[in-house]
Amino acid sequence: MSGPSSAPGAGSWASSGPTLAETGESEILRRFLAASRPSDRLLVGNGDDGAVWHPGPDVDVVLSQDACVEGVDFVRRWSSPQLVGRRAVAAALSDLAAMGARPVLCQATLCAPGTARLADVLAIHRGLAEAAAEFGCVLAGGDLSAVDGPLVVDVTVCGEVAAGRALRRDRGTGGDALLVTGCLGGATAGLRRLLADADPATDGEQLWIERQLRPVPRIAEGLHLVADGVTCAGDLSDGLLLDAQRTAGMSGCGVELWLDHVPTEPGIREAIADWPALALGGGEDFELLVAVPQAAAGPLLSNWPSDLAPLTVVGALTTGSGVRLLDRRGGSEIPPPPAASRHFG
Amino acid sequence: MSGPSSAPGAGSWASSGPTLAETGESEILRRFLAASRPSDRLLVGNGDDGAVWHPGPDVDVVLSQDACVEGVDFVRRWSSPQLVGRRAVAAALSDLAAMGARPVLCQATLCAPGTARLADVLAIHRGLAEAAAEFGCVLAGGDLSAVDGPLVVDVTVCGEVAAGRALRRDRGTGGDALLVTGCLGGATAGLRRLLADADPATDGEQLWIERQLRPVPRIAEGLHLVADGVTCAGDLSDGLLLDAQRTAGMSGCGVELWLDHVPTEPGIREAIADWPALALGGGEDFELLVAVPQAAAGPLLSNWPSDLAPLTVVGALTTGSGVRLLDRRGGSEIPPPPAASRHFG
Repeated sequence: MSGPSSAPGAGSWASSGPTLAETGESEILRRFLAASRPSDRLLVGNGDDGAVWHPGPDVDVVLSQDACVEGVDFVRRWSSPQLVGRRAVAAALSDLAAMGARPVLCQATLCAPGTARLADVLAIHRGLAEAAAEFGCVLAGGDLSAVDGPLVVDVTVCGEVAAGRALRRDRGTGGDALLVTGCLGGATAGLRRLLADADPATDGEQLWIERQLRPVPRIAEGLHLVADGVTCAGDLSDGLLLDAQRTAGMSGCGVELWLDHVPTEPGIREAIADWPALALGGGEDFELLVAVPQAAAGPLLSNWPSDLAPLTVVGALTTGSGVRLLDRRGGSEIPPPPAASRHFG
Repeated sequence: MSGPSSAPGAGSWASSGPTLAETGESEILRRFLAASRPSDRLLVGNGDDGAVWHPGPDVDVVLSQDACVEGVDFVRRWSSPQLVGRRAVAAALSDLAAMGARPVLCQATLCAPGTARLADVLAIHRGLAEAAAEFGCVLAGGDLSAVDGPLVVDVTVCGEVAAGRALRRDRGTGGDALLVTGCLGGATAGLRRLLADADPATDGEQLWIERQLRPVPRIAEGLHLVADGVTCAGDLSDGLLLDAQRTAGMSGCGVELWLDHVPTEPGIREAIADWPALALGGGEDFELLVAVPQAAAGPLLSNWPSDLAPLTVVGALTTGSGVRLLDRRGGSEIPPPPAASRHFG
């Protein structure tokens, strides 16, 4: 089964050349090391037992880890190995963005079977390193392991935030305005298009596919939220419904979402009949969800820099518990679309 | 194929009970969260997008990542799921020990198929959390992912060390004395015994199996090395031959090892004909390798606390390059035993 010709990077996995088993571990690690970049922030980078950096004065350190698994998070025919590496770093950095942290370094564990092509593994590694640089940090080591199974790229990200200022999911209050960055539903629309495996895609569909394969972590948006005094945020890796419930639950609140206010990826409302399922239940848009007191929402919106992903009010935390979906602010309650977990159940 | 009855924890994987797919992601995560422990050091622990901690004054932060893969690093019939979790944390913490860092937190990605039993995954998680506590840190989140393949437990460890004092592999000098902590060869002897799959094991063999399944990271030893002013160390996860070459190479030196001086696990020299292959080429003993100027070796040894793993001189860095194995200090060169990579080639 071959993929759509329109998929970015499709077909660029190696079909020949040495495998990992033929290359040997020390040579693979030597190639990784040769491709590593220096960084002013790192005292020790690749090649030693660990990476070392000196945190800035009066900061907290933020750590997160996110796995990208073949057959679950990506399929080879959709994506080049380099894009797989890039996406793994971007997805992991979304967690730092959601904490308002500035990325310092990332590490990656790469599990691959001995039959994997060296060229593909080096391309994944290059994608990891280039994405780290693109988003302001550096790839500093990790682990390489054989596995008798699919590729696993597990990325750890480490960043810093002014002491006590990390954005937290448990800092919301009943009555808070709920906002999201960017547009929702694009990544899931792109995933559906990739799963349909038909070509060619329209230009609009190509953009959805880009949203799935080339997500952008909202680092600058997270930093601006901290600078603006915001205390409560999380990312939307599991979709608005689930992540809004999670934030509300951790804050001891309920939550109300207003469907008509939810910003959606251009074209989705027109082209996809069940677009609410994508905008509310679809994950992996890697946008941020923010809760602020009502009085702070206006100033936050009016001071929001135009070069950042737009910020939109989509609902409110409530003094109850659980989630209610309304057709619009002050409108009628409607049943929420299914919000499936990405992994189990 | 059933394992030896003597293997610690053998047979304790669940053969019934709900699977991950039957349980659902949110319930699994809820169970993980319920088992998490509070920590004074963590400002934000489990459940948010990342873990947050405040580094001590004037410290460097050390980060390392280490994967434990089913079929590569462990086999179910050898070990209980709880021991698999414990071992993954211990192996990862060995890298912090080798940097002289004090562990602060660890995170873990757990990849498991939907058919895995919930009880097993919770037991792995318990093993991770208990090992973190045993070694002075705390398990703070991570990731859970489906995989159509073997179990992968990828542990990230984060620690701190006084600024500029991290132990490094590139700080050796030609002429330095080379020392190791503890005894070598036990983990590989245990692995051989497990692979032979015969029972029962003798008491001595049981100890080797323990070395393979229950390694102890040399945290206290690493901290003492830093306090004593040592600057060059690494761990022996890949065996003395490979790790000594790596340390020498990064220091721009050669290395000379003296076989008769290498401390071996009790009973190995008597029971195993090719014991040098285990003591020099076998990995996973997770001991430390230390290089210090000759003048510092005496004071280091005489000040070495008796409650730490013993420290033994096993060779020296040289002004050349490459590795030479001598039968004893000042003795004859002998061919090194094969030192196979654990993974590829």
